[in-house]
Amino acid sequence: MSRAHPDLDSLAFLVGTWKGHGNGRYPTIKPFEYVEEAVFTPGPGKPFIAYRQRTRRAGAAGEPLHSESGYIRPGGPDGPELVIAQVTGIVEVHTGRVDSNRVCFRSSDVRMSPTAVEVSRVERCIRVVGDSMRYRLWMAAVGQPFQVHLEAELTRVQNG
Amino acid sequence: MSRAHPDLDSLAFLVGTWKGHGNGRYPTIKPFEYVEEAVFTPGPGKPFIAYRQRTRRAGAAGEPLHSESGYIRPGGPDGPELVIAQVTGIVEVHTGRVDSNRVCFRSSDVRMSPTAVEVSRVERCIRVVGDSMRYRLWMAAVGQPFQVHLEAELTRVQNG
Repeated sequence: MSRAHPDLDSLAFLVGTWKGHGNGRYPTIKPFEYVEEAVFTPGPGKPFIAYRQRTRRAGAAGEPLHSESGYIRPGGPDGPELVIAQVTGIVEVHTGRVDSNRVCFRSSDVRMSPTAVEVSRVERCIRVVGDSMRYRLWMAAVGQPFQVHLEAELTRVQNG
Repeated sequence: MSRAHPDLDSLAFLVGTWKGHGNGRYPTIKPFEYVEEAVFTPGPGKPFIAYRQRTRRAGAAGEPLHSESGYIRPGGPDGPELVIAQVTGIVEVHTGRVDSNRVCFRSSDVRMSPTAVEVSRVERCIRVVGDSMRYRLWMAAVGQPFQVHLEAELTRVQNG
């Protein structure tokens, strides 16, 4: 098992490959269910955790839905940092707060490519108990108030 | 071999796994040489090319230097779009121009996490001839004028 750099000890609970399912909703879209694979990989050598995930629509067809990737950094007084690029043309900069086995990242900056949908604020909370992860993502986008967009439950299928 | 989505036909020359070496310079740092692996993966199913790269210092020790990952999208009238997250805490949004076997991406937005170094403008040009790729990256950062920061030459070691 690869270990997180000591500067990221408090986030070591994220490390591994995770699989599971989730659901999405937002006032402007039809609710949907998805399956997800997320990977948090430490280092190598430097204090960061690489993050990537992909989702597919739940069910037989299972067409690809979303992908995103980025990095968690130890950060400074404001807490750990998360930077993400999304296949939807959105980039996010977050700072986080760790509370035992839970981390919440709040966006300090969300930027879009010219053809991306407008997103103004994102928050992501991840809670891990043993090999079980639950996360929730809140979003303010396309003029709608800040609200829950995604909820998922994943299982650690591989360490490190 | 995986193929790029038709909407990204003009960038199909990027697809594959590339390895090679490069050099970096900037007024504020010591010049350095690096080895790099870059991967451009199409789809699946949707019109995008996933991009990720990692570099190590050239030579025996070869400690990890940099990583970044993101997505190329077809974009609209402004050309293809590139969104990137970097392990250095930087995110970039680019629009590009394709000219036969060459693509140049110019940043429309560069944002930093609280502990990242300040970068204000980035441009990346990639040229592919057969299985040989050359890229150059220009950057304006930490108060310095816009100038070449990286140059590298990679070889395609795997298709798709």
